[in-house]
Amino acid sequence: MVTAVPGAEQRFKDLGLALPPVPTPFGAYVEAVQTGNLLFLSGTLPAIGHEAKYVGRLGEEFDIEEGRRAAHLAALNALAIAKDHLGSLDRVIRVVRLGVSIATAPSFRDHPKVADGASELLVSIFGQDKVSTRLVLGVASLPLGMAIELELILEIAA
Amino acid sequence: MVTAVPGAEQRFKDLGLALPPVPTPFGAYVEAVQTGNLLFLSGTLPAIGHEAKYVGRLGEEFDIEEGRRAAHLAALNALAIAKDHLGSLDRVIRVVRLGVSIATAPSFRDHPKVADGASELLVSIFGQDKVSTRLVLGVASLPLGMAIELELILEIAA
Amino acid sequence: MVTAVPGAEQRFKDLGLALPPVPTPFGAYVEAVQTGNLLFLSGTLPAIGHEAKYVGRLGEEFDIEEGRRAAHLAALNALAIAKDHLGSLDRVIRVVRLGVSIATAPSFRDHPKVADGASELLVSIFGQDKVSTRLVLGVASLPLGMAIELELILEIAA
Repeated sequence: MVTAVPGAEQRFKDLGLALPPVPTPFGAYVEAVQTGNLLFLSGTLPAIGHEAKYVGRLGEEFDIEEGRRAAHLAALNALAIAKDHLGSLDRVIRVVRLGVSIATAPSFRDHPKVADGASELLVSIFGQDKVSTRLVLGVASLPLGMAIELELILEIAA
Repeated sequence: MVTAVPGAEQRFKDLGLALPPVPTPFGAYVEAVQTGNLLFLSGTLPAIGHEAKYVGRLGEEFDIEEGRRAAHLAALNALAIAKDHLGSLDRVIRVVRLGVSIATAPSFRDHPKVADGASELLVSIFGQDKVSTRLVLGVASLPLGMAIELELILEIAA
Repeated sequence: MVTAVPGAEQRFKDLGLALPPVPTPFGAYVEAVQTGNLLFLSGTLPAIGHEAKYVGRLGEEFDIEEGRRAAHLAALNALAIAKDHLGSLDRVIRVVRLGVSIATAPSFRDHPKVADGASELLVSIFGQDKVSTRLVLGVASLPLGMAIELELILEIAA
C-alpha cells in the first residue's frame, strides 16, 4: 500500500549536498529509536559534531536568513542520523512530524519563515507529496545556547 | 477491540458549535499526516484562517479567561483539520496527546487553567472516557505573536 | 522479536528507590494513554502529588545539581504513572522518547547536564541497551512555576 519514496538519495546528490558527521549524544541518550514503522530522532542542532555553529537568538544575534541557515544545518544533522540508522534515506516513507524550536527575542514573530529553512530541505529531498506536519515554538534557551532545535518522527518502510 | 467514539459529530451539533474554516499552512508543511492508526496534526493557533485573533502573552495582555478562549479557538481549528482529513469526527477513537504551548510572562503559573480551555472542549466532543494525555509548556514566543499553540495526536479507527 | 526488558522492577529495588504517589491530573486530562504498543504519559513535574517541590529556574534559583534532582523526581513520577498503568515496569520494552523542558534563565546553556538527571535514572532502571531518544528545551515557564517537565513515550510488550 505504502512504498518507500524513490529517489531521496538521488535527489540529495543532485542538489550537491553533503551530510555532516553523524551527531553523537550530549548525554545519556541515543540519536534514534525505531518502534514499529516509526523512527524517532533526538533533537538536532545547528552544530558540526559537538561544535555549536549558531549560538544566539532570532531577533537578537540572528536575522531570518541566518535562522534559515541554522535550520538547514540542523535538518542535515537529522538526515545524517536517519541515514546512519537506516542505511539509506530511500527507506523513509514520510516525515510524519517536524518540530522546530527557535530561541527568540520576546518580540520575534517570523517563526514560520525560519522553520521553512528545515522544511524546504526536507521537501527537496523527500518530495512534495511527502511533506510533514509541523509544530513551531519560540523557546527561552536551547542546549549550549544554540538558536534552533529540530524534532523529527519518520515513517519507515516495513 | 477498539471502536470509534459514537456521537462526536452529534455532540458537536448539540453544543451549538461551528467549525472555523480549515487552517492552511504558513509554510512548507501540511496540516495532517496519518501513519498507521495515528493522525498527527500540525500546531494549531487561535486564528481564523491566517488572521491572528489572540496576539500577546498570558499574564501580560491576556488573563486566564481570555487564554481559555484562545485555547478553545485553537482546539476548534484542530477539529476542523481532523474533520477535513477524516470526513467525520466520529472516526476519532481517542485524543492520544494534547500539547499546549502558552506564551507567558515569566511569572505566570496558571498554565493548567488555560490549557483546560482546549481540554474541556475535547472532552465535551469525544466524551469523558476518551480524555487525552497532556503536556503544557510556557514558551517565549509563538508564530505571529499568538498566545497559544496546540499539538494533537489522534487515534483513528482502522 | 522484541521482548520485555527483564529486571526493571528488580533494578528499581536494588537501587533502594521508592516511587512517589501516582500523580493525579491538574485539569481535564489523564496521566497515560496507550495506543497500540505505545504508552504516552502526560507531562511529569518535580512534585509530590500536587505539591510543587522545585519552583524556580535553572541559572536563577537552581544550579545544575539541584536541576538534576528535580529531573530525577519528575522521572520517578513518570515511573509511578507507568507502573500504575502497566502493573509492572517489566512490561516496558523501551523508552522511545524523553522530552525535557527546563525553565531557564535566558543565558543558561547546560541543559544536557540537567536532563541527564532524568536520563540516568531511566538507564539505571531499564538498562544501557534501552536508552531513549531525547529532546531538551529551555522554556519560559512551567505549570505552577516548576523547574522541569518531562514527556515520556514508552514502547510496551504486546
